[in-house]
Amino acid sequence: MRHLLSTQDLAREDAIRILDTAAQMAATQSREIKKLPTLRGRTVVNLFYEDSTRTRISFETAAKRLSADVINFSAKGSSVSKGESLKDTALTLQAMGADAVVVRHQASGAPHLLAHAGWLDAAVLNAGDGMHQHPTQALLDAYTLRRHLSGAALLAPGASGPDDTAARGADLAGRHVAIVGDVLHSRVARSNVHLLHTLGARVTLVAPPTLLPVGVGTWPCAVSYDLDATLAGHGEHGPADAVMMLRVQRERMSGSGAGGGAFFPNPLEYSRKYGLDARRLGLLAEHAVVLHPGPMNRGLEISAQAADSPRAVIVEQVANGVAVRMAVLYLLLAGSDDAVASPAVPVPSAVPAERVATS
Amino acid sequence: MRHLLSTQDLAREDAIRILDTAAQMAATQSREIKKLPTLRGRTVVNLFYEDSTRTRISFETAAKRLSADVINFSAKGSSVSKGESLKDTALTLQAMGADAVVVRHQASGAPHLLAHAGWLDAAVLNAGDGMHQHPTQALLDAYTLRRHLSGAALLAPGASGPDDTAARGADLAGRHVAIVGDVLHSRVARSNVHLLHTLGARVTLVAPPTLLPVGVGTWPCAVSYDLDATLAGHGEHGPADAVMMLRVQRERMSGSGAGGGAFFPNPLEYSRKYGLDARRLGLLAEHAVVLHPGPMNRGLEISAQAADSPRAVIVEQVANGVAVRMAVLYLLLAGSDDAVASPAVPVPSAVPAERVATS
Amino acid sequence: MRHLLSTQDLAREDAIRILDTAAQMAATQSREIKKLPTLRGRTVVNLFYEDSTRTRISFETAAKRLSADVINFSAKGSSVSKGESLKDTALTLQAMGADAVVVRHQASGAPHLLAHAGWLDAAVLNAGDGMHQHPTQALLDAYTLRRHLSGAALLAPGASGPDDTAARGADLAGRHVAIVGDVLHSRVARSNVHLLHTLGARVTLVAPPTLLPVGVGTWPCAVSYDLDATLAGHGEHGPADAVMMLRVQRERMSGSGAGGGAFFPNPLEYSRKYGLDARRLGLLAEHAVVLHPGPMNRGLEISAQAADSPRAVIVEQVANGVAVRMAVLYLLLAGSDDAVASPAVPVPSAVPAERVATS
Repeated sequence: MRHLLSTQDLAREDAIRILDTAAQMAATQSREIKKLPTLRGRTVVNLFYEDSTRTRISFETAAKRLSADVINFSAKGSSVSKGESLKDTALTLQAMGADAVVVRHQASGAPHLLAHAGWLDAAVLNAGDGMHQHPTQALLDAYTLRRHLSGAALLAPGASGPDDTAARGADLAGRHVAIVGDVLHSRVARSNVHLLHTLGARVTLVAPPTLLPVGVGTWPCAVSYDLDATLAGHGEHGPADAVMMLRVQRERMSGSGAGGGAFFPNPLEYSRKYGLDARRLGLLAEHAVVLHPGPMNRGLEISAQAADSPRAVIVEQVANGVAVRMAVLYLLLAGSDDAVASPAVPVPSAVPAERVATS
Repeated sequence: MRHLLSTQDLAREDAIRILDTAAQMAATQSREIKKLPTLRGRTVVNLFYEDSTRTRISFETAAKRLSADVINFSAKGSSVSKGESLKDTALTLQAMGADAVVVRHQASGAPHLLAHAGWLDAAVLNAGDGMHQHPTQALLDAYTLRRHLSGAALLAPGASGPDDTAARGADLAGRHVAIVGDVLHSRVARSNVHLLHTLGARVTLVAPPTLLPVGVGTWPCAVSYDLDATLAGHGEHGPADAVMMLRVQRERMSGSGAGGGAFFPNPLEYSRKYGLDARRLGLLAEHAVVLHPGPMNRGLEISAQAADSPRAVIVEQVANGVAVRMAVLYLLLAGSDDAVASPAVPVPSAVPAERVATS
Repeated sequence: MRHLLSTQDLAREDAIRILDTAAQMAATQSREIKKLPTLRGRTVVNLFYEDSTRTRISFETAAKRLSADVINFSAKGSSVSKGESLKDTALTLQAMGADAVVVRHQASGAPHLLAHAGWLDAAVLNAGDGMHQHPTQALLDAYTLRRHLSGAALLAPGASGPDDTAARGADLAGRHVAIVGDVLHSRVARSNVHLLHTLGARVTLVAPPTLLPVGVGTWPCAVSYDLDATLAGHGEHGPADAVMMLRVQRERMSGSGAGGGAFFPNPLEYSRKYGLDARRLGLLAEHAVVLHPGPMNRGLEISAQAADSPRAVIVEQVANGVAVRMAVLYLLLAGSDDAVASPAVPVPSAVPAERVATS
């Protein structure tokens, strides 16, 4: 694995390896000194063409926990706003010696171009491109789901296990995940559908017809317009083990959107039909968990009671995001494919905390 | 001490402990290598809902001098601007493993909420909230005053002592500080009145009636409308040992302010009645010092001669700000209350510079 | 050398010393671990009154590769935008313990003022001031030219030598560099003319009369209005060994500029007369190289073919920029003049990578 661009082309064994490595990273994060020397001297550039403080600081935290140097390059007010091409920006980062480039871009495919045009030797990590992909989000979701739903280490919602590594090697075979909301504009939904499929889970997309993409029929998932029916287990895949609520982008709600028309009549109507509230929470199986990529619109796609219920693993998703991004940076920058495949290689958790603390 | 939210609830012994620790930190800052390994592996988040480069870089410098990792989270262009609640931001920072959150917020009380709502385990440091508090500013002012005015280590204005720790344990008993200007809108004034009172100093607020808050009569200080009389020692507390000039916020000067009316007729008139110039400097006692929180409006609340006179300790305040913020971060993150209370504990100045340089 | 403010007052031996040190720095940048411990514990402040992401991240990368702490101070939204004077900003940085201040300012002379007004002890590095100077750009250009044109280590365009230090001590005596484009507004052109002259090169400025400054006749260079003639070797200095294309600032192209009038009729006309394209590339000598300070306007001052041709050393300039900035920071902060002059002093490349990796 040289880059992380999409979950669509991510092989099952690569995905499992990332989740297993993330479990080891997570184990280091409960120590008082969370920092590992693994990427000391390496430079990670956060190249953000769109603002996204949450994603940026998650990657920045992950890189710094691995002792990498982080350079934040926001396209606003930069040479990019003076018309510099993606190519010239890439050549610049290459010349500066970037070891990894984390890129968020409004254009679908920009990370793929960065990775494969021959401009850069650095590893490219897609941190969200247009309406296309956001693979680390899907990986942190899968990681969170595996912690709570994998047979080997079933955690009650809200509980934390003695050891994140208990699920080592497991996938999500047979589990059912409902993804609810604005699928049309969501790279999170796209990334999750493919990764969950790869990991053996069944997926139901639940959305009003106006918020489903053309061609969704070819995706490896079921589709429903009726949230209550899905939550009650009346859909094709039966009862859900997890519900993932998507963020509503308010600017898409009204007629003022770029398309000139509204995708949905109004927020109240949306909440009534597709919002997760206490009543709907009651329809779920005992063990089912609730996910949301954040930031939440409390009262719109999710009620405060649902967001704060013990079933919600939303805050845990954020913590898992740091662990998953540490794992990806580690695998792309420090671990060769061969090395990581071999159990003889010292994994990061083998680095004693003392070595960090006394350095 | 778990957080630093306000000077109003800061116990005398905690305040003295911060000042004493800051003196030790200051001593390390005259070394060629100013960095200490104390907070290596800890993450300090600067969560700024208002721009404040000076305060942000002071905290950033303090944290980096202690070897912490610093993540800057500016609310502009972030999920906050997309409507994320303070609660969800807090949960995010918690999940990312923040050890301390330095927060600047336009709403009074936001830091208190962050600290006590149960969202975060991190230490919360108030870097200014609304018109309420700015406790590290008051602490750096007190530190500066103690250096120059405490009986044990009286420094002439402009002089620097052989050892900042000579004032160890001292307070400001019996000293008189005049705070001059826009008290109404000033969290600096509020923070100082309480801390100075706790440390035994007497305080006179000097301002036009329109720039004094309702209820100022209940504050532990005297009030005057006449700067000349106060400086000449004709007020309730007699001659001043220090004058602290507050920054005039120009947008509050004219009728274009939010209140729809002007707090003061015009800048010239303000300068004439409440500005510190060379003549007024001449009214002060020989040993008295001049403070200003910065940035100064030269020619408005303070003349260039006053700002650059040997009595002005304004630049020293900035340096002391780094030392005080290092002390607070140290006490909140590395020093347990018990530990710091005990003289047997190795304080940071005991860390040899070599250990840093060779690591 | 205490500061780096201008190439005009840079002595030949200082310039050569910077280039030689940069060659040593460049050698460390091909290692897997590019970081040196040289400036550990030092604080470098990037004080940017103008946006310039490329220059800022080049300095930030250079400082971090030397293990310095970096504080980014963008004047936007800071106390500067509230009217703080350069003096008070300088005093603030001094009080915070800045060891070096990298300053970009719209006013010519601001870095000189910072360095010599007595406000700061820190080393001041000019990162571009008004239409005046941008000395590290000229130094990285000279470094790039020396690699490819110095007699001792003549590299074919596009080739990289086995050892960057082969050109040690060399200057650019006898070489001819054409600088093409908007000389009037270009601090890059000004900085290069002086440094190239100091290093023994001959320079021809090629521009339309409207884009040449008044008084250019007194500069140590030839002037031409005819790019084709210059490239064909018909000018005063004969054939060029290098062509440096300047960036066209589009806002200066039309009548909407600050001057109220256009400096040039339109982009097409500009390209036709002063743009570098494949045909003009063919006029150059075999060994001649093409430089551009970036970001390029592909299709305006340089065609895509020219920008991507093997003669273009534009990407290499960026890499050399990091090495040159590392060298300048090293010489200003770690190396005394005496120390560096003496060959007995351990230069940074003598620091084994292991020491970094295991710390």
